[in-house]
Amino acid sequence: MHGTSEPFPDLLALHGAAARIAPWVHRTPVARCSSLDAMVGGRLHFKCEHLQKVGAFKFRGATNAVRSLTAEQAARGVATHSSGNHAQALALAARDRGIAAHIVMPSSASPVKRAAVLGYGAAITTCEPTLAAREATLDLVVAQTGAHFVHPYDDHRVIAGAATAAMELHQQVPGLELILAPVGGGGLLAGTALASHHLAPACRVVGVEPAGADDAFRSLQAGRIIPSVAPRTVADGLLTSLGERNFPILQRHLECIVTVSEDEIVAAMRLLWQRAKLLVEPSSAVPLAALLSGAVDVAGRSVGIVLSGGNVDLDGLPW
Amino acid sequence: MHGTSEPFPDLLALHGAAARIAPWVHRTPVARCSSLDAMVGGRLHFKCEHLQKVGAFKFRGATNAVRSLTAEQAARGVATHSSGNHAQALALAARDRGIAAHIVMPSSASPVKRAAVLGYGAAITTCEPTLAAREATLDLVVAQTGAHFVHPYDDHRVIAGAATAAMELHQQVPGLELILAPVGGGGLLAGTALASHHLAPACRVVGVEPAGADDAFRSLQAGRIIPSVAPRTVADGLLTSLGERNFPILQRHLECIVTVSEDEIVAAMRLLWQRAKLLVEPSSAVPLAALLSGAVDVAGRSVGIVLSGGNVDLDGLPW
Repeated sequence: MHGTSEPFPDLLALHGAAARIAPWVHRTPVARCSSLDAMVGGRLHFKCEHLQKVGAFKFRGATNAVRSLTAEQAARGVATHSSGNHAQALALAARDRGIAAHIVMPSSASPVKRAAVLGYGAAITTCEPTLAAREATLDLVVAQTGAHFVHPYDDHRVIAGAATAAMELHQQVPGLELILAPVGGGGLLAGTALASHHLAPACRVVGVEPAGADDAFRSLQAGRIIPSVAPRTVADGLLTSLGERNFPILQRHLECIVTVSEDEIVAAMRLLWQRAKLLVEPSSAVPLAALLSGAVDVAGRSVGIVLSGGNVDLDGLPW
Repeated sequence: MHGTSEPFPDLLALHGAAARIAPWVHRTPVARCSSLDAMVGGRLHFKCEHLQKVGAFKFRGATNAVRSLTAEQAARGVATHSSGNHAQALALAARDRGIAAHIVMPSSASPVKRAAVLGYGAAITTCEPTLAAREATLDLVVAQTGAHFVHPYDDHRVIAGAATAAMELHQQVPGLELILAPVGGGGLLAGTALASHHLAPACRVVGVEPAGADDAFRSLQAGRIIPSVAPRTVADGLLTSLGERNFPILQRHLECIVTVSEDEIVAAMRLLWQRAKLLVEPSSAVPLAALLSGAVDVAGRSVGIVLSGGNVDLDGLPW
């Protein structure tokens, strides 16, 4: 089953999300780097979502979802399953609103991420590290608590929240000709595409994906969602399959998706650290990798790149 | 000999520097971090000079000095001796103006830093790694070329340029009650003190120094410049002695200087990376170390911290 009967978030939904979350999120800065510009021949503008709260753009979508709930819905709390940035994002968004968050985490989740979620005051339910176990455990938690499920990306409130990063970027840097974002489940990329469609229609939008997790690339080619099976990439935020709400937005509003190799991702990440002093996680380096490899030519162009997050293991850097 | 007959840079000199360098430098962003705020009980505002061109605040002072030269002076180029960020800063500032830069570097300087200086189009003269050899070689280069010497910190144009970082911070965050900066030669700290004196006189200014390189602390206590002899610290930007133009500004406008241990510096640097996603060099972590150690109490206060730079060896991190 692909697509839903829900219409795409429109301009009003995007502005509504921006206004709803403004008191709770950082308006992140845009960074420049002359030496990276010289390497690709274009003018790169990095939207620094690694400096967002919880260190990732995910906090925008989670906050928009939590703030969209009625008082009655909110009173029963929110729930999700996640081993990554969405868990922390939903936990903090719930704490900001003063409501409960129930997070289902696989037993394989790192102690650091568990501690972060607990630190934001959420309750953790641990399950086996399979998608089936995560979904079954989540169903149980929702049945017991009446909590409202907030999906990490297959949710129009989450997509509209993610879109606010690109909305800000278009305000901060008028006249962008091209904007790139990484693609995992498609929340950030769909939001970026919608924001650009409504606010900067002349700006092309390109998704970039690890070749070792190229389900979105193949899905767009096939015209239907092809699940991500046994993906292998250092970009651990980009392992998931596309959501059924995300896919049709990408079909409608995307220029293309290009893929990059693991070596290219690691080299791009190291350059972002060494030259631009931007402490990003591997997933954030995927778009720059496509420019450095020549997969996308930006010569003479004004380009935006959404850096998705900065949650990285400082004791296990990939070089 | 302490002090010179030159008056301190006044408000006009600071505004002149800001206007002179504005087309050439980045207006760097201010970063926040809720978890660091919670750890120290205050509201911390990090001025991100690690995102400045060449990765350090040094580019502001070098640019102000280069742009202050008359056409006749500029035509003969500029010169300095440096193994660190000032070498790159002066090289790029000269290239921006289209003039020659002659950099005397000790044979002990890292190949990476030599390559960066060459990459900005400067000419390097190599000498023995002693201060006497550096000064003698610089004298020779100046005699041969007629180039104008730009000292890394003991120069009012350099101090006024460095002051523009704190000027921006006071504009970006009105109402700061306290501002902290690291102290090596005293260029950044003297500039921060002058900017705060003129633009935010209610804001106290505190310098922070490694205990293993505490010559500025001891100089303020003694009332005269005590040279830095055999300093030992991971904060390799803070090894130098105070300049004779810097010292009297600190005497006049500083609240105090506090010292921190090596362990406290490394722990603060790791927190800035892990929690705030700010890729700074050890010198930049020195002020936060003073808050975390309790040496400076910021409970309930709005605080500015100038992050001096981000030039760090990614293959030799101090943890």
